[in-house]
Amino acid sequence: MEGRTRALAALERDFGRAVEELVALARIPGVSAPGFDPGEVARSAEAVAELCRESGLQQVEVVRIGDAHPYVLAEWLGAGPDAPTALVYAHHDVQPPGRPGRWQTPAFEPSVRSDGRLYGRGVVDDKAGLLLHLAALRAWLDTTGSLPLNVKLLVEGEEEIGSGHLADFLRACRARLDADVLVLSDTANLETGLPSLTRSLRGMVAVDVGVRALDHPIHSGMWGGPVPDAATALGVILGRLVDERGAIAVPGVYDDVPELSRDERAALEKLPFDEAAFQRDAGMTPGSSFAGEPGRGVYERLWHRPSLAVTALEAMPLAGAANQLIAEARARVGVRLAPGQDAERVRDALVAFLEKDPPWGVQVETECGCAVPGWRSETVGPAFDAARRALAAGFGRDAVEIGCGGSIPFVGPFVEVLSGAPALLLGLEDPPCNAHGENESLDLDDFRKAARASVHLWAELAEALR
Amino acid sequence: MEGRTRALAALERDFGRAVEELVALARIPGVSAPGFDPGEVARSAEAVAELCRESGLQQVEVVRIGDAHPYVLAEWLGAGPDAPTALVYAHHDVQPPGRPGRWQTPAFEPSVRSDGRLYGRGVVDDKAGLLLHLAALRAWLDTTGSLPLNVKLLVEGEEEIGSGHLADFLRACRARLDADVLVLSDTANLETGLPSLTRSLRGMVAVDVGVRALDHPIHSGMWGGPVPDAATALGVILGRLVDERGAIAVPGVYDDVPELSRDERAALEKLPFDEAAFQRDAGMTPGSSFAGEPGRGVYERLWHRPSLAVTALEAMPLAGAANQLIAEARARVGVRLAPGQDAERVRDALVAFLEKDPPWGVQVETECGCAVPGWRSETVGPAFDAARRALAAGFGRDAVEIGCGGSIPFVGPFVEVLSGAPALLLGLEDPPCNAHGENESLDLDDFRKAARASVHLWAELAEALR
Repeated sequence: MEGRTRALAALERDFGRAVEELVALARIPGVSAPGFDPGEVARSAEAVAELCRESGLQQVEVVRIGDAHPYVLAEWLGAGPDAPTALVYAHHDVQPPGRPGRWQTPAFEPSVRSDGRLYGRGVVDDKAGLLLHLAALRAWLDTTGSLPLNVKLLVEGEEEIGSGHLADFLRACRARLDADVLVLSDTANLETGLPSLTRSLRGMVAVDVGVRALDHPIHSGMWGGPVPDAATALGVILGRLVDERGAIAVPGVYDDVPELSRDERAALEKLPFDEAAFQRDAGMTPGSSFAGEPGRGVYERLWHRPSLAVTALEAMPLAGAANQLIAEARARVGVRLAPGQDAERVRDALVAFLEKDPPWGVQVETECGCAVPGWRSETVGPAFDAARRALAAGFGRDAVEIGCGGSIPFVGPFVEVLSGAPALLLGLEDPPCNAHGENESLDLDDFRKAARASVHLWAELAEALR
Repeated sequence: MEGRTRALAALERDFGRAVEELVALARIPGVSAPGFDPGEVARSAEAVAELCRESGLQQVEVVRIGDAHPYVLAEWLGAGPDAPTALVYAHHDVQPPGRPGRWQTPAFEPSVRSDGRLYGRGVVDDKAGLLLHLAALRAWLDTTGSLPLNVKLLVEGEEEIGSGHLADFLRACRARLDADVLVLSDTANLETGLPSLTRSLRGMVAVDVGVRALDHPIHSGMWGGPVPDAATALGVILGRLVDERGAIAVPGVYDDVPELSRDERAALEKLPFDEAAFQRDAGMTPGSSFAGEPGRGVYERLWHRPSLAVTALEAMPLAGAANQLIAEARARVGVRLAPGQDAERVRDALVAFLEKDPPWGVQVETECGCAVPGWRSETVGPAFDAARRALAAGFGRDAVEIGCGGSIPFVGPFVEVLSGAPALLLGLEDPPCNAHGENESLDLDDFRKAARASVHLWAELAEALR
């Protein structure tokens, strides 16, 4: 019996164990955001290291760079110096749980519901992304005592807060991480059950805008009329961001957006798209329509065009309001960038627009958050062909190629540091998964299919890159 | 020695006691707003009743209508049925203290600072408005054993939450409250030390607008572009409220605004106006300019034109934001109305404008708060002349006639129920007093002058209305 066949059989036999491990790992509230216990992220790293050891990986190490949350490194290099090497990336930290009352079951008590999905913070983002590969590697090692190629594993602990130390980490460990192909989890499938290769990521810019009109709140009757207020001024400023067509009104934002080729557009049009399902998965209110630029398809708007949203807004809450002119109001404006755009240029354009001509000359201050460029890749060559074969074998369906509307800041630097090795972006987030939101969930059937595809992937890559 | 002279002497002698009584009363946190202990409002009413008794008033009674916060009634009718009767109105409830950290001294520990002002919640709004009259009435009663006319006193307990039971109260007690002249505290002086007769009040409309774009927050990368969000949509809606000239863009809002006559406008232009002091008292940020309609003077904009402000705004706070499309966002839009405008018409126009053409068809719901018309009075006749003489004598300066940009919802019904008796609106709020805000304060010198004017007022009214 071929090694791959035995590994697949072992995977099926032990799949319950993989789910149990996922549930145990997702019980650890390893939230990397400030204000949460960093000890839990450390506990999460230790648990990941233990899982690596139990899976048969070697040189397992919990690594700290400066004050960063710990990373985990592991490897199996038994295929020898002539065999190709794959570097697998995942992250073990998670987003804050959000509002506890909105979770149907507690965020850190993972539970399977009748829809066949496992609910809990981090289950899909990105703990399943790690465990599907560990399950596949263990299936190979348990049954054949070896892997078809060398594998290195890097599990980050600060992805959800921007991977602040990843560049340093990559520089420090460059030699140890050298590989012929990268396998990155933490991306999405277009539909549940439809394997997807992600070929582009959008970039992201975020700018906080604070408006100050007054020293302190004052009586809206005694002063209203001649005296400006911060909330109305902020409303005016935010109202300028979108034009009447629904497009971004910030000058220059579209200037360096690469237009899709005819072939690229045709490929997008061939992808399955169920408008009703899309709106339902997004949770759009009945009767509402799509936003963004008219004349562009939904996938183009999502993956290849910049988009703008006010992602935070605060002034005087309604409950505390007392008919006063509001002194200060703040918002965060986020722009997702098309792959290929210059992030710093767009950030500067947004800042200039927010600060220009403040209503009534009120004080406007901006504070720049991230400015991360997007990323794109040609999906041609033996590694991509190998991935397509593995996904088709694992899922029983041909893979599609998609973009990702989100940003994964580390992908660009990662590929660059590792000398441009091909990057396979394969993940398990599906439309209803609600990553980052409450009631995050994972389709357990896809988890099994992806683990199967991972068993195939090591064999296919070993053959393709030999 | 004339009674008035003796009363004035007694007032000066006992002025320290009036300040002490004010401090003691202002220590009671009688906040009428929901969520605060109603027992404190009841305690405040009992303290007011006790002060009335100590001042020599009779028939002192704490009155409850339904579940309203208690009112206090008192009177002195010893001048006999042939003498005129004045009804004095004040309120004893106060606004919530706001943010404790913004008070330089605690809100309910009144303290005098080096600027000669007493700081504390309710000191000027409206506890001084009550105590200046009580001090004057006591000075008359202590020294002459009588007052020049009959006096009735009504001290409300729910003014800061909209006087919800005042109409019922007036109907129930109409006979008992009958009077020839009304003396209403709780208004303002144009400048510190400048006595002012208020001849008009603006009305007020408030509408809450809630935008719902999504079932729940979703990842701004995964969905941003085709999917609308509530905060951006709310920004668009709020941005529509003001036109590029700074005027209110809601159609119809100016339709029934009475234009000032040439004489009225000339009178406004003669009033003292110190632009720098006005901007400083308002706390406008340096470099900002006046809002509202161009081509209208500041007093006209404040008192005789509608004004609009976003007085509450809430969505996702910046601290909790996680790059998500926001599901729901809310704001309160307040419009102050010119005296003479139809409040319900303006409210309906505002609701229609907020609900019209929601961006991307997101759900917009409105909830109407108050719709209170303004009020105006001709300040001619013997009662007004008497008031002018009393103010000039008390303050050592001629009184000016002003409008009030705020709304005092009860004034209209009050005057109406009491058969159109002339209403003298006299108060102690001055530009730096910050009523409703943190660090509310009272100028103690004006408190003394106003109490002196009150001593004069009873003699002047008795003579004028005899």
